Amino acid sequence: MVNQVQRADGSLQSCKSDSSGASNSGESSKESSRCSTPVLDADRSDRLRDKMRRRMESGDRWFSLEFFPPRTASGAVNLISRFDRMGTGGPLFIDITWHPAGDPGSDKETSSMMIASTAVNYCGLESILHLTCCNQTKEKITGYLAKAKHLGLKNIMALRGDPVGAGWEEEEEGFNYATDLVKHIRSEFEDYFDICVAGYPTGHPEAESYEEDLRHLKEKVDAGADFIISQLFFRADTFLKFLDDCRAIGITCPILPGIFPIQGYQSLRQLVKLSKLEIPEEITRVIEPIKDNDAAIRNYGVQQAVEMCRVLLDSGKVPGLHFYTLNREVAIMEVLRQLGLWIEDPRRPLPWAVSAHPKRKVEDVRPIFWASRPKSYIYRTQDWDEFPNGRWYNTHELKRFYLLVNVVYVLVKNDEAYCQTTKRCPVVDVFRGNSSSPAFGELNDYYLFYLKSKSSKDALLQMWGDELMNEESVYEVFTCYITAQPNSNGHKVMCLPWNDEPLAPETNLLKDELEKVNRRGVLTINSQPNINGKPSADPIAGWGPAGGYVFQKAYLEFFTSSENVTALLKVLKKYEPRVNYHIVNVHGRNLTNAPDMQPNAVTWGIFPGREIVQPTVVDPDSFMYWKDEAFALWIEQWAKLYEDESPSRMIIKYIHDNYFLVNLVDNDFPLESCLWQVIDDMFKMLDAPPEPEDGTVSE
Amino acid sequence: MVNQVQRADGSLQSCKSDSSGASNSGESSKESSRCSTPVLDADRSDRLRDKMRRRMESGDRWFSLEFFPPRTASGAVNLISRFDRMGTGGPLFIDITWHPAGDPGSDKETSSMMIASTAVNYCGLESILHLTCCNQTKEKITGYLAKAKHLGLKNIMALRGDPVGAGWEEEEEGFNYATDLVKHIRSEFEDYFDICVAGYPTGHPEAESYEEDLRHLKEKVDAGADFIISQLFFRADTFLKFLDDCRAIGITCPILPGIFPIQGYQSLRQLVKLSKLEIPEEITRVIEPIKDNDAAIRNYGVQQAVEMCRVLLDSGKVPGLHFYTLNREVAIMEVLRQLGLWIEDPRRPLPWAVSAHPKRKVEDVRPIFWASRPKSYIYRTQDWDEFPNGRWYNTHELKRFYLLVNVVYVLVKNDEAYCQTTKRCPVVDVFRGNSSSPAFGELNDYYLFYLKSKSSKDALLQMWGDELMNEESVYEVFTCYITAQPNSNGHKVMCLPWNDEPLAPETNLLKDELEKVNRRGVLTINSQPNINGKPSADPIAGWGPAGGYVFQKAYLEFFTSSENVTALLKVLKKYEPRVNYHIVNVHGRNLTNAPDMQPNAVTWGIFPGREIVQPTVVDPDSFMYWKDEAFALWIEQWAKLYEDESPSRMIIKYIHDNYFLVNLVDNDFPLESCLWQVIDDMFKMLDAPPEPEDGTVSE
Repeated sequence: MVNQVQRADGSLQSCKSDSSGASNSGESSKESSRCSTPVLDADRSDRLRDKMRRRMESGDRWFSLEFFPPRTASGAVNLISRFDRMGTGGPLFIDITWHPAGDPGSDKETSSMMIASTAVNYCGLESILHLTCCNQTKEKITGYLAKAKHLGLKNIMALRGDPVGAGWEEEEEGFNYATDLVKHIRSEFEDYFDICVAGYPTGHPEAESYEEDLRHLKEKVDAGADFIISQLFFRADTFLKFLDDCRAIGITCPILPGIFPIQGYQSLRQLVKLSKLEIPEEITRVIEPIKDNDAAIRNYGVQQAVEMCRVLLDSGKVPGLHFYTLNREVAIMEVLRQLGLWIEDPRRPLPWAVSAHPKRKVEDVRPIFWASRPKSYIYRTQDWDEFPNGRWYNTHELKRFYLLVNVVYVLVKNDEAYCQTTKRCPVVDVFRGNSSSPAFGELNDYYLFYLKSKSSKDALLQMWGDELMNEESVYEVFTCYITAQPNSNGHKVMCLPWNDEPLAPETNLLKDELEKVNRRGVLTINSQPNINGKPSADPIAGWGPAGGYVFQKAYLEFFTSSENVTALLKVLKKYEPRVNYHIVNVHGRNLTNAPDMQPNAVTWGIFPGREIVQPTVVDPDSFMYWKDEAFALWIEQWAKLYEDESPSRMIIKYIHDNYFLVNLVDNDFPLESCLWQVIDDMFKMLDAPPEPEDGTVSE
Repeated sequence: MVNQVQRADGSLQSCKSDSSGASNSGESSKESSRCSTPVLDADRSDRLRDKMRRRMESGDRWFSLEFFPPRTASGAVNLISRFDRMGTGGPLFIDITWHPAGDPGSDKETSSMMIASTAVNYCGLESILHLTCCNQTKEKITGYLAKAKHLGLKNIMALRGDPVGAGWEEEEEGFNYATDLVKHIRSEFEDYFDICVAGYPTGHPEAESYEEDLRHLKEKVDAGADFIISQLFFRADTFLKFLDDCRAIGITCPILPGIFPIQGYQSLRQLVKLSKLEIPEEITRVIEPIKDNDAAIRNYGVQQAVEMCRVLLDSGKVPGLHFYTLNREVAIMEVLRQLGLWIEDPRRPLPWAVSAHPKRKVEDVRPIFWASRPKSYIYRTQDWDEFPNGRWYNTHELKRFYLLVNVVYVLVKNDEAYCQTTKRCPVVDVFRGNSSSPAFGELNDYYLFYLKSKSSKDALLQMWGDELMNEESVYEVFTCYITAQPNSNGHKVMCLPWNDEPLAPETNLLKDELEKVNRRGVLTINSQPNINGKPSADPIAGWGPAGGYVFQKAYLEFFTSSENVTALLKVLKKYEPRVNYHIVNVHGRNLTNAPDMQPNAVTWGIFPGREIVQPTVVDPDSFMYWKDEAFALWIEQWAKLYEDESPSRMIIKYIHDNYFLVNLVDNDFPLESCLWQVIDDMFKMLDAPPEPEDGTVSE
């Protein structure tokens, strides 16, 4: 996407002396896909309780964040952006509360289930789904758990929940306590889920006594819970005493304090009412006089939370802090920064946003095309049974796999004659039918909520033009996006259909090159600079384990007219075999010089004691799937803004129908990229007066 | 091996300014393993007839070489060395004649079958096995063909052969003509083999007429032969007429002229007698006067062959030349050099010697340990069903594979209950039992003929010492090998048990470093320098397709005493995580800092339009197999030179029992290798006066 072109090229310019670049296109600006699992490599395959154990062993403190599901679809879009932003700080996990009244297990985009699934699958965050069992049948609960498992959720916070109505009574064989739910999970799903339960530092309000409540807590742990998160409290002493009391009765699992930074007067009162807690006098004394000053209250809340957290951490008994965020981010980030727990520049295990779905554990290669639409890539590959690990699958390897399956079949049937006479093998058919590994899912709904543009239709029209006059109007939109200058109506172009993120402001260094090519109708949508060995710890380009080196081949992807493509194809002959290309229109076959249609590795890393990691490839097969999506975005996101048959719509449709999508790779990564030169040569050829064939006249 | 240490280090020194090195340890000196398939990458998976077709399409002329099987085992060792040397010139194929009297299909090291198998499997040469059918039963012939197929041979030269005794008559249903053999191969083995048949430019001596013989040839082709090699002839015209006559009757397959450079008076007379050919008068006239001057005859033969070949090639009708070598190399190489067909620096598809066995087509990763013993590696992995392609197998991936097989099994049986109740899956057992993929075969017979030392026992004793006094005597042998200086008895040390090749004379640049460490008992046996991106066309370090870049991590492998290892382990703490190590004694477990026992890629290449190729790894699992072999070589090749219980034998045995095998990888390939510094630090620590723990005294 152009946004990355900008960032990338900016960095490229600044590093020109060592002929290497900086940003990887797979990593978008902070706003979008920087939400990769911000932890070490080994963390990726561990379950949550093992991650906790390892952090405790190494003495690394952690934090975690609690969110509640939003009420509206646009609230969901905002919350997911917040996950992406807060994910960059490195929470060990987040958790999503369960709202029985809000259809929490449904497929609605606002349900607890779908929000947690999105956090795991699309934002790459280790997540805990809350689940309350009160007034629920076993079948219903099992259904929720099975669905959660299917969606890739691995952690459940097992709660009783609040009984509905006053007449609630214990049911025999029913779910009366969280303990029953813990037992049910363990009996139905064995060890699949990590289970968290709630602890009450001052005792559950309904418990007969604090001691009685502690015993209940021990029962929950004995039933199979892996760790405890405490209800909020206002004094560090309260939690530390509770912790000691838990240890005294033999609770040995991790117990995390639930921290509630006071963020406003009303929210504090409401929460206190719900939780039946008393606000200590020393807090009331400060808050009451400033109750109408939101900023003052928030400042106090930050300061109070930081002080309390310091006492907790200094006790040496608290391995991590859990924050009740109320779905807000400013105060929480401030507390975490002051505590030094917010990771300013988290290590990225790979250059793109890693999904936390357990099936995708081994995934370490993706096509570059979805670099600025990682959520779309995850969506379209969600039904794959196997993810590429080490190398990008190609047809050849799949064939070998089928062959192997065939052999196994013969072994199993012990009946070679069968396969030989029928000349077919049912297993292969089964696999061909079931395995969608090589195929991408359809993406018909361009308004899937996690792909939704944050801008309204009106805002988009302001940016992209209420009325387009001709193709040049479109070039102008791209150019304005690049230059960050207002368009003729005075509106800045903050996004394009292929990239929902505004232009990163600091990257204006290669503006001239980009402006020039976009103004002439080379409509850039994705790129990365070449990198010839930057340390893996490099703050911009780095990824992967420490002590390694990362590399890239320069990449450029754009739409352009068939006239330009004709000239480009002539120019490209001069750049064989240095430049590989794929050129395709919305209907057409792929014009390419890719040898044997093999994938081309364009990002790779060399690390101590490991095989080589090559996380992005330019792959001919998947380019054809991307082509469909990239062209469809013209229509779905842009043309449909205008009325049917309107001139504006016809212009976009014309581009959609007639332009080509081009990608170029400069294989000579140690040299300065030649891709701009290629485009320049193309323009020169277009500008030159027509020459007779073979230059016979000039001789 | 030390030989490579020398070459490598020499080159490293000469390239120090760009902190890269030169030679890859996987490629030995020209004498040993430079026999990789000296053709382009795509050639590797093609069958011979497809290679020919592609060469004809591109207009690239080729040559091929005919050899006969040796009479003695030492003759076999010499012939295999000749294959390695002549393989470097880039023959499209070689062929091995069939000697019915010499037990040609047996497992004897001198049999046609075993020589052809060695050429394919260990020398990486595309090879044709001759086969004669006269006086043979169908069962016998089928047995030979099945054995050839099993050994990885893919090409057969189908001949009638000479009838034994005068009373030979045609048998009904028997093999009376080569045509019968061609038909038999096609009927029993379908399209598996490429089949070559013989053509007679002046007609077969037993044929009724030249025309009758042409018709027989057409029958052979129609029966399924893929190409024709002609009997020898003395005039280009003879062959060109024959070629035209073949085309005229509809023979369209390639027809290769058989070239017989005259190499001596006696051999000429003998061959002419056998083939019932007449020597043209213009040749007799020159030869007869010089018949006692071998050099003059050979010079004439070279000149005559070159002239005839030029006429053939200039005709435009001859795509390749086939040479009857008589198992000699000088004259043939001279002819090929003068014709410009000898490839002086063949492109290497990979940095190590590629085997031509069809099962190994996809193989592109090997452990570095066998770099100077590639034939041993091929032998020990010959029973593998799958070869690593792209990545080195590790336990984790095998587990995933077994899991997959399990799934297939369940699908096939459609009986999930079976597997769940028995908790085992027979398919997995079958695979575990049958597949030796992860395991290396035993190498008990250290005198397997293709691993045999070219030196006699006496020569070895002269080099390695008739009598060893102590461990320092052994250090002295290593040091002499490094310095290329004579030992105290005045004999140069030309080989060591881990490397049968003499020291490459041109590489003396890092002699001082190596001499120093070997003299102090760091007994180096293998190494490679770091390379930070050399062009793939680099004459020394290059491999793989054009336009790419090759890389290496510095590697050093040596035996050393436990005292040294104790110091080394302390020193290595300073080099974490830059240096990975594996340290093991003959009995012991692997002391290592390899993360998760993963393989470490130490050679890799980046090429246009491809995924990354990583052909050598340091792999913890296979290092344990190599360890057994490396330690065993002390005993099998060195200690056993001396009498039982003799002091010399006890000294070698002491080293075998007490020393450690160490390998070191410097992961920081862009920087100058730190491995010599590591050794230096170890020596400094050993030389320093003993310090109290924690340095308390010095404070």
